[in-house]
Amino acid sequence: MEFLNELKKIAGQVDAALNRYLLPESSCPEIIHRAMRYSIFAGGKRLRPAMLIAAAEAVGGSADKVMPAACALELIHTYSLIHDDLPSMDDDDYRRGKPTNHKVFGEAMAILAGDALLTMSFQLLAGLSGRNGIAPADVVRVIADISAAAGTTGLIGGQVVDIVSANQEIDAGTLEYIHTKKTGALFRAAIRSGAVLSGADDEELKSLTNYAEHFGLAFQITDDILDVAGDMQKTGKPVGSDEKNNKATYPALYGLEEAYRLAGYSAEQALYALEPFGEKANFLKELVKFVVNRDH
Amino acid sequence: MEFLNELKKIAGQVDAALNRYLLPESSCPEIIHRAMRYSIFAGGKRLRPAMLIAAAEAVGGSADKVMPAACALELIHTYSLIHDDLPSMDDDDYRRGKPTNHKVFGEAMAILAGDALLTMSFQLLAGLSGRNGIAPADVVRVIADISAAAGTTGLIGGQVVDIVSANQEIDAGTLEYIHTKKTGALFRAAIRSGAVLSGADDEELKSLTNYAEHFGLAFQITDDILDVAGDMQKTGKPVGSDEKNNKATYPALYGLEEAYRLAGYSAEQALYALEPFGEKANFLKELVKFVVNRDH
Repeated sequence: MEFLNELKKIAGQVDAALNRYLLPESSCPEIIHRAMRYSIFAGGKRLRPAMLIAAAEAVGGSADKVMPAACALELIHTYSLIHDDLPSMDDDDYRRGKPTNHKVFGEAMAILAGDALLTMSFQLLAGLSGRNGIAPADVVRVIADISAAAGTTGLIGGQVVDIVSANQEIDAGTLEYIHTKKTGALFRAAIRSGAVLSGADDEELKSLTNYAEHFGLAFQITDDILDVAGDMQKTGKPVGSDEKNNKATYPALYGLEEAYRLAGYSAEQALYALEPFGEKANFLKELVKFVVNRDH
Repeated sequence: MEFLNELKKIAGQVDAALNRYLLPESSCPEIIHRAMRYSIFAGGKRLRPAMLIAAAEAVGGSADKVMPAACALELIHTYSLIHDDLPSMDDDDYRRGKPTNHKVFGEAMAILAGDALLTMSFQLLAGLSGRNGIAPADVVRVIADISAAAGTTGLIGGQVVDIVSANQEIDAGTLEYIHTKKTGALFRAAIRSGAVLSGADDEELKSLTNYAEHFGLAFQITDDILDVAGDMQKTGKPVGSDEKNNKATYPALYGLEEAYRLAGYSAEQALYALEPFGEKANFLKELVKFVVNRDH
């Protein structure tokens, strides 16, 4: 419970920052700013921003200093959800219990809102330069890392393989590819960016990258399990919506019990990677426990 | 003719660089890289890259040094065309005489190919840092400028107003807003980026920005005129396709003759802004003449 309160506290700070960074709904053209804000403030847990901030703190940095980068990750995550939900992709009408962006604003505006959030993420990152002594070279490094994680060798690549694999039997290698890219790449970039912007050395960066990769797998396997075992009230989307589209999932491929075991193993490995950081990594430790034990 | 040969030469260099920077079609996932390459190599004139390079040369820089930035602008331009052509937006089946991206690869892949090109543009820009002595601070400045030009206060903002204005009477102010944002913002960013990356001083940057803004208007008015006066063979899209959708155009609002006069006036202002640069700005001078005199 203490951890959940801490996560909510960080989410509140991230929400306040997002509210400052995003143009108000009254800015011309109003409809695009309303569409962007609709999905950004649709009730996300702000996991990626919290991870970026926690990685910063694990190497002695501060939340305030890296906040624009934390928000940039949330913009990218939200853009990817808006586009994934489109009729030509997953065709989802609900997300977190609310109508999806295109159901409210129409397809054209949903596509453009996604484009705008992605574009704005790099504007926010560029704005980090010179802020509280962050070196332009570190900002450029983070932009290179995040753009790679969001592109065809990361997030987009995972979504592409996910789409072309629908209604097909897929093997374990393909399933891991989809998850590593579609979910893992952005977690990894979040953790690494927080560390780089806070002056992490090579050893620290390596350990935290290791954490991020195991965390990502634990997260996605648990997500798959919840989609089978959860209910709509808790996840905000119809039970078995992935199965409906014949999407590849861990329970579908390995069975539910083995999927639980794999999630647990990944969580352990993630915790192991945090050992060098001691108490400064407490939030990251609790986060991985929370993620595998959540029921929604 | 000499100018056209020069433009073709630069376009050839840009094409070669784009071919190096883009992942090969054989890269996993193959379909997304095929979709990206399909639209990138669909026969663009490479105006934005040529402008970026010409601005670099006007202040004593070189094409080689700024080539990744030149290509980044072409990626953003191409992403915007792919998304604009989608059924939920302009619903165009042809672009430059070839089937549009979604007609070949389907809507989902066209959306993702656009997303990927936009994302990759920032990866290319980040890669400029340290290249031939380019300072990270200048790279960050260019990323800030380009992301602002591509976002809701630029390219996307223009497209949003264009869409919501369809089938409506619009006034001169709205028409200029659409053009300034939808076409002008990226020209402006191209010119400014070439200059900043090549060490332009404030005075030079101001003059070149001035050039870019007038050039953008001349370009768009001419584009509108060609849409009325041209024919499908020359433009690669059905004559009057904008009028068909009731899109705002200069000839529709001012009449054909006055539209010609406005294009000529903007071209003159653009040329005037180049006076301080002498012969080093010859390409930019010829470019604006070419743009208002072209017949396709």
